[in-house]
Amino acid sequence: MSFLSHLECSRCRQTHEADRVQNLCTCGGPLLVRYDLKKAAAALRPADLAGRVSSLWRYRELLPVRSPDNIVTLGEGMTPLFRLPRLGEALGLRELWLKDEGLNPTASFKARGAATGVSRAKELGITSIAMPTNGNAGGAWASYAARAGMSVTLVMPTDAPAMSVLEATAVGARAYMVKGQITDAGAIVARSAKAHGWFEAATLKEPYRIEGKKTMGYELAEQLGWTLPDVILYPTGGGVGLIGIYKALLEMRELGWLPEGVRFPRLVAVQAEGCQPIVKAFREGRDTSEKWENASTVAQGIRVPKALGDFLVLQAVRETKGTCVAVADADTLWGLTQVSRLEGAFICPEGAALVGAVRSLLKDGWLTPDERVVLLNTGAGIKYPDILKSELPVLELNATL
Amino acid sequence: MSFLSHLECSRCRQTHEADRVQNLCTCGGPLLVRYDLKKAAAALRPADLAGRVSSLWRYRELLPVRSPDNIVTLGEGMTPLFRLPRLGEALGLRELWLKDEGLNPTASFKARGAATGVSRAKELGITSIAMPTNGNAGGAWASYAARAGMSVTLVMPTDAPAMSVLEATAVGARAYMVKGQITDAGAIVARSAKAHGWFEAATLKEPYRIEGKKTMGYELAEQLGWTLPDVILYPTGGGVGLIGIYKALLEMRELGWLPEGVRFPRLVAVQAEGCQPIVKAFREGRDTSEKWENASTVAQGIRVPKALGDFLVLQAVRETKGTCVAVADADTLWGLTQVSRLEGAFICPEGAALVGAVRSLLKDGWLTPDERVVLLNTGAGIKYPDILKSELPVLELNATL
Repeated sequence: MSFLSHLECSRCRQTHEADRVQNLCTCGGPLLVRYDLKKAAAALRPADLAGRVSSLWRYRELLPVRSPDNIVTLGEGMTPLFRLPRLGEALGLRELWLKDEGLNPTASFKARGAATGVSRAKELGITSIAMPTNGNAGGAWASYAARAGMSVTLVMPTDAPAMSVLEATAVGARAYMVKGQITDAGAIVARSAKAHGWFEAATLKEPYRIEGKKTMGYELAEQLGWTLPDVILYPTGGGVGLIGIYKALLEMRELGWLPEGVRFPRLVAVQAEGCQPIVKAFREGRDTSEKWENASTVAQGIRVPKALGDFLVLQAVRETKGTCVAVADADTLWGLTQVSRLEGAFICPEGAALVGAVRSLLKDGWLTPDERVVLLNTGAGIKYPDILKSELPVLELNATL
Repeated sequence: MSFLSHLECSRCRQTHEADRVQNLCTCGGPLLVRYDLKKAAAALRPADLAGRVSSLWRYRELLPVRSPDNIVTLGEGMTPLFRLPRLGEALGLRELWLKDEGLNPTASFKARGAATGVSRAKELGITSIAMPTNGNAGGAWASYAARAGMSVTLVMPTDAPAMSVLEATAVGARAYMVKGQITDAGAIVARSAKAHGWFEAATLKEPYRIEGKKTMGYELAEQLGWTLPDVILYPTGGGVGLIGIYKALLEMRELGWLPEGVRFPRLVAVQAEGCQPIVKAFREGRDTSEKWENASTVAQGIRVPKALGDFLVLQAVRETKGTCVAVADADTLWGLTQVSRLEGAFICPEGAALVGAVRSLLKDGWLTPDERVVLLNTGAGIKYPDILKSELPVLELNATL
């Protein structure tokens, strides 16, 4: 089933055994999952995927779960990819696409990483997990852990979105708040996990969530008939989605699934003006970012002052000749209105930031009107009910409009 | 592309031309869409579906849109179908499944009907639509209308769920409230539509929403490898979902897509104790229901005092040897907790009512433990944030759990 081979440190390249519980490398670097891609290429061709389940598990040979019995699924993945003709025309782009991750369980792309992370944790015998969260990841991991019969403990900032709190409590997670940032929540989780023997599943501290997220890259290629777009924009907080898409591109090339000599899409990491550590590092030509002080943005999912995988994001962007863009909250809200009203897609503010980014990249000529551009919307707008005003006029019973 | 043939009255069987704008039959009956199924059977076999788009448009030959240019899609359909092993065990059922319609655009099954309804309206040249709604349908139709560039007017009761109000306003619908029930909203819409020439798209007053909803039946069969479950439970308000699934069963049999001599699943219409007109009619052996006075339930989506298609629901239930069950709100909330905590699926209260129904049907022996049972969950739990309490303890920065 799976061609899982071993784990490799993304920083020092040391290899680690996959079939025991692992967090970070001894050097502190996040671990990446490696497969025997030669064998996989011989056993599986793109055409074999056609009749398979409409979820990310259609790529099971390239996912880290060895036994189908350990798959914990709520139907995540194979989210729709569709054109945005009216928004494209308004922005001046001939071919604009949206991949809508809001159509995942728990209404965000976080379900992908939680599905593979929890499945693999189950396979390795883990029964209790703990993690800090800004919201969506917590809701997702809590849901998959509940389905696996695992106990889960979450700690989140007091300003975490109410909808994620709701999700976590609905499925019976032990959840707490802390008056601080996600880094403060992370410190509490690290101490408590150590004290109780819980598995710590914070972003990139466990190797398997990337694997779920990389399937966004596989799906994009499959949905476009094994071609690639020119540009992919991604809202970047922890950056695992973007790292995962790049990992998928490299794997698909090695598998021989992409046209000979194909050019990779330029990957664009989009952050908020109020929290843009990776944009700053990119502009300054640095390999890692510095912690962003007083981080603040309406797009809470990308309010990550310092990402553990920042260097991997910067690598992915540079190696694909991409770029990094910061978007003002006002432009994010403008983008939200544009995509909702012109295309009927009520996306999350993180996804809406991409619309602002497209506008500015077109303006300065980095994007040209004839390029095929994909916006990766990471979640559903209804998870952020406070972002828009929604009061309605009340009519009399005998009214006619 | 489409094998659309004509429209047929579900009551008096009169036929109507499909390629002009139609509401009800002259006799007041809802119109059903008919296809040339002989030609369709010759042109299309189940195996042809394998490589197609992962949305309800994979069944395009059996949908009413003639030109692909008129398809208005946000990626609706092909929602996941997965086992509920832990809940099944707790209830005493060997094979319990959930089809999760929360993974649709606008987080409910209403997206299916809106997609086909708006697409066909576009094809027929309609530019303005109006409808009364309890919530989810309004959010869905507003979204698809926005994408099609149509104007849309909604009228909903003042106690409509805030999340649907949010969706409708986000996509720019003209939306209003009225201090009354959906029937009062319907009267305002009917008057106003007449005054302004808007197309009235209330439930079953236009023929095409059923077509989107019937695809739940096609998908179930395809996802189960062209076999059928023994029982399907469906939360029943207007009843279009259930009517649609039965229509799909009949069509698939005529197409020759089902095993020879297959027995149809028994269809179970589930209502709330506080609004159970169809259950009452079923018990009394009647063909139509009477308006339920003072309708009230926590499952707002099935608070429909009198459904236009009640006789079609009763037909579908009786012809499949199914039944009708009313569930108390307390059992619905119990069901919500069970499915959330045991399976990590945070479903809507309408879907949760099905869990209460399964328990009572097992208890009285109507269901037996070895039957294959499918719960059709119609929407996502996060659309009902007020239904659960979700306050968390706040930790000190230096806390260890």
